[in-house]
Amino acid sequence: MKNTNIYGVILAGGSGSRLWPLSRAEYPKQLLKLLNQDTSLFQETFLRLAKIAPKKNIITITNAKQASDIKIQLGEMDAFENPILSEPLGKNTAPAIALSTVYIKENMTKNDDDPIIIVAPSDHLIKNCIAFADTVKKGVSLAQAGYIVTFGIVPTHLDTGFGYIETTKTNDIQAISPSAFYVNQFREKPDLETAKEYIEKGSFYWNGGIFMFKASTLLDEMSVHANDIISVLNDSEISTEATTINFDDYEKMPNISIDYAVMEKSKKIALLPLNCGWNDLGSWQAIYDVAAKDANNNSISGNVINIDSENTLIYGTSDKLVATIGLKDVVIIETEDAILACNKNQTQDVKKVFDQLKQKNHAAYRIHRTVYRPWGHYTYMGEEKDYLIKTICVTPKSSLSLQLHHHRSEHWTVLSGNAIVQVGEEKFNLSSGESIDIPIKTKHRLENIGDEDLKIIEVQKGDYLSEDDIIRFQDEYGRADLISENA
Amino acid sequence: MKNTNIYGVILAGGSGSRLWPLSRAEYPKQLLKLLNQDTSLFQETFLRLAKIAPKKNIITITNAKQASDIKIQLGEMDAFENPILSEPLGKNTAPAIALSTVYIKENMTKNDDDPIIIVAPSDHLIKNCIAFADTVKKGVSLAQAGYIVTFGIVPTHLDTGFGYIETTKTNDIQAISPSAFYVNQFREKPDLETAKEYIEKGSFYWNGGIFMFKASTLLDEMSVHANDIISVLNDSEISTEATTINFDDYEKMPNISIDYAVMEKSKKIALLPLNCGWNDLGSWQAIYDVAAKDANNNSISGNVINIDSENTLIYGTSDKLVATIGLKDVVIIETEDAILACNKNQTQDVKKVFDQLKQKNHAAYRIHRTVYRPWGHYTYMGEEKDYLIKTICVTPKSSLSLQLHHHRSEHWTVLSGNAIVQVGEEKFNLSSGESIDIPIKTKHRLENIGDEDLKIIEVQKGDYLSEDDIIRFQDEYGRADLISENA
Repeated sequence: MKNTNIYGVILAGGSGSRLWPLSRAEYPKQLLKLLNQDTSLFQETFLRLAKIAPKKNIITITNAKQASDIKIQLGEMDAFENPILSEPLGKNTAPAIALSTVYIKENMTKNDDDPIIIVAPSDHLIKNCIAFADTVKKGVSLAQAGYIVTFGIVPTHLDTGFGYIETTKTNDIQAISPSAFYVNQFREKPDLETAKEYIEKGSFYWNGGIFMFKASTLLDEMSVHANDIISVLNDSEISTEATTINFDDYEKMPNISIDYAVMEKSKKIALLPLNCGWNDLGSWQAIYDVAAKDANNNSISGNVINIDSENTLIYGTSDKLVATIGLKDVVIIETEDAILACNKNQTQDVKKVFDQLKQKNHAAYRIHRTVYRPWGHYTYMGEEKDYLIKTICVTPKSSLSLQLHHHRSEHWTVLSGNAIVQVGEEKFNLSSGESIDIPIKTKHRLENIGDEDLKIIEVQKGDYLSEDDIIRFQDEYGRADLISENA
Repeated sequence: MKNTNIYGVILAGGSGSRLWPLSRAEYPKQLLKLLNQDTSLFQETFLRLAKIAPKKNIITITNAKQASDIKIQLGEMDAFENPILSEPLGKNTAPAIALSTVYIKENMTKNDDDPIIIVAPSDHLIKNCIAFADTVKKGVSLAQAGYIVTFGIVPTHLDTGFGYIETTKTNDIQAISPSAFYVNQFREKPDLETAKEYIEKGSFYWNGGIFMFKASTLLDEMSVHANDIISVLNDSEISTEATTINFDDYEKMPNISIDYAVMEKSKKIALLPLNCGWNDLGSWQAIYDVAAKDANNNSISGNVINIDSENTLIYGTSDKLVATIGLKDVVIIETEDAILACNKNQTQDVKKVFDQLKQKNHAAYRIHRTVYRPWGHYTYMGEEKDYLIKTICVTPKSSLSLQLHHHRSEHWTVLSGNAIVQVGEEKFNLSSGESIDIPIKTKHRLENIGDEDLKIIEVQKGDYLSEDDIIRFQDEYGRADLISENA
């Protein structure tokens, strides 16, 4: 039986830079259904934690821009009501974990409860979920005894890309959990020589960012070692509306990781070795390493014709054709609006491309051409200075918000399915092939009451054609007060 | 002064396989404006010949599918009226040269004239046009003396990819043109050892496929060595309408090159060495070789972000982003619907990809998403089983044919510019943002009488959505009788 006092916190605020162009700032790694999986890394994390904590006890903290996508993915797992804490801006892990802990304590438990919380990143691969659950459950008694438990990944090879954790055996800790260790020190990413030393000693583990603690332990340690975070929380109201927190207060938070803020300073850290086929999928090379491969060590998916390539990762995601000939140790990632062709031994430099695009404010760092919404999705088809074209797909029984635009008119043609269109105070039924004009500054709404997808093509005309020209009046998905999101 | 008795024949019937995905079966290499040139290889060939023959004396023989694009490119050079012989199917060079010769003799000269004809492929690069013209002009006296003159490319390096021509000095020929040789033998592409031998001997030249002859010489030699071609020509009527020849008759032609049919058998072949920066651009590697390069030997154009690559050809042609990291000796060619990533030393295998696509009848071997027409161009935007979307651009003062479709209705929305739309017997003026329905089986026409481009988006609806569902009634471009072409 699951311990009803255990709560899960999923950290889902990734930047989306390392698996670009498949990941984007507003559609980062954890949302991706990689390697032809039906579930995203975020969803897999949720399902993993749901083996330890009651499903309803699992909350997610994420960037405000991704909250809508997280909600869609929770919905796919019948967890539409699970709380999402939406960060107005990224402040690294310490503020996120502190806020989540306070939120659980104040909003999800009774006043004198001291919940046990497991925190996990949302974008790692764990192949052996049974081993994961078994190890994590061993952490409960340590957490109850007042330790912050970190689950240290048992190193499988020499690697300079991770932080390491140095441990010792102590009787105190082993009395509680025989396989656990006391943590001496958190160590930064080492150079090659130092990494060799660590691996040879055998008492070092990789820092996988998975922690378990009693709420009171974490908050007490934070008061001692990171009181600037606690004082912001003490001074601010946390909204009881599940998915919003006050912007101004979060901005006051320091930008600091839980490692720097607490783990490297606290004397109450225990470690349980975790041996569960962990991979941080931190680059396309890491994806290649865990992917299924053909006889020539190629991992190929999508609309691809390959001749004579070896040791490649070829990933086509659109309807376009990708032809590869005689490539060796190359990664090709193809999306609707951007293509990456990269030496497989240099995939860490993808971040440099992402940073260049971000600096230029190029759309391809931020979003895909197809953007998912609670009601369906839209695909950007092209634009010139005075028009913009999109196709829009509305799923059955869904509707966009009642909205208006100050700077553009819209012309809709139904491609398939049936539409109910409100324009001003009038409603129209449109079937396949019919079209309608939405004048500028006019309230309108698009609705699909049918049983099949509704697809329309939208031509926007006006002097300013941008997603932020929208006023929402009513919305089925609680977005009537949000800004800068489409429909 | 130019000799008005000289005529030019441009062979423009390439298959488009070797520079895929930029070239396509219906948009082959000679139509491409490569290396950021303003003129295509075909246009450069025309301009080269126009330095030798009067401009109006130059005809083009090409595949029927490409005739429309050839016409557009002739128009760009103010040569819209120059004849195009349109082959209903490809039969290699011998029938094309024979037909062109007969056509010039019967339709472009007086009865007792014996024109001198220069034949040139349309898809080679010649850097030094002055050297080309100088050498070719030397051929006239040889042609007049009854020789078929071949212009042999002076080899610049060891190459097994070309046919070679073996020569000897003879007094007869040198009396006419001191730098000319007698041709002993045409040789197939040699192996490496043989090629070395050829180059060392110094009396061998590459076969560049450029010939000059008197019409009577060619036809007489053909009567002796390839009478099956001559007999088809004798038995058939050549239409005096410039751009059409009878399908049934051309089908009777043998499929044979001029080398096999005549050059390897005739004893009347002279050679003039041609040293003019010739390159057959027969692969992406050849394109790379002649392209301008940066300090790391990369030739990069288009919307590209490159980090640390060397010796690459990166060619982006759409609005999509191409990011390349740490590539070495790789060719990346990006188009709207297909991407090639190829080891630079294996670019000859591009043909294998092309052949696979052709076998599958995949659209990407045949056409681009954007297709050019005499009136402008259209871009395929996507389709599902019951609809298809295109954007259409009509240039100023142009119009599509008056047409109807048996299986689809169309819905047009004007994106920019102004349209005159005829539907049935009525005409409508549509300005930007307005739309109109074209019912199934209804005559219609789209016209741009304005001074700026007219852009519309077209949604096709119906049970059969294909280019060949078109009946043309009137057409500004002489296509009212053609089938299987759009608009």
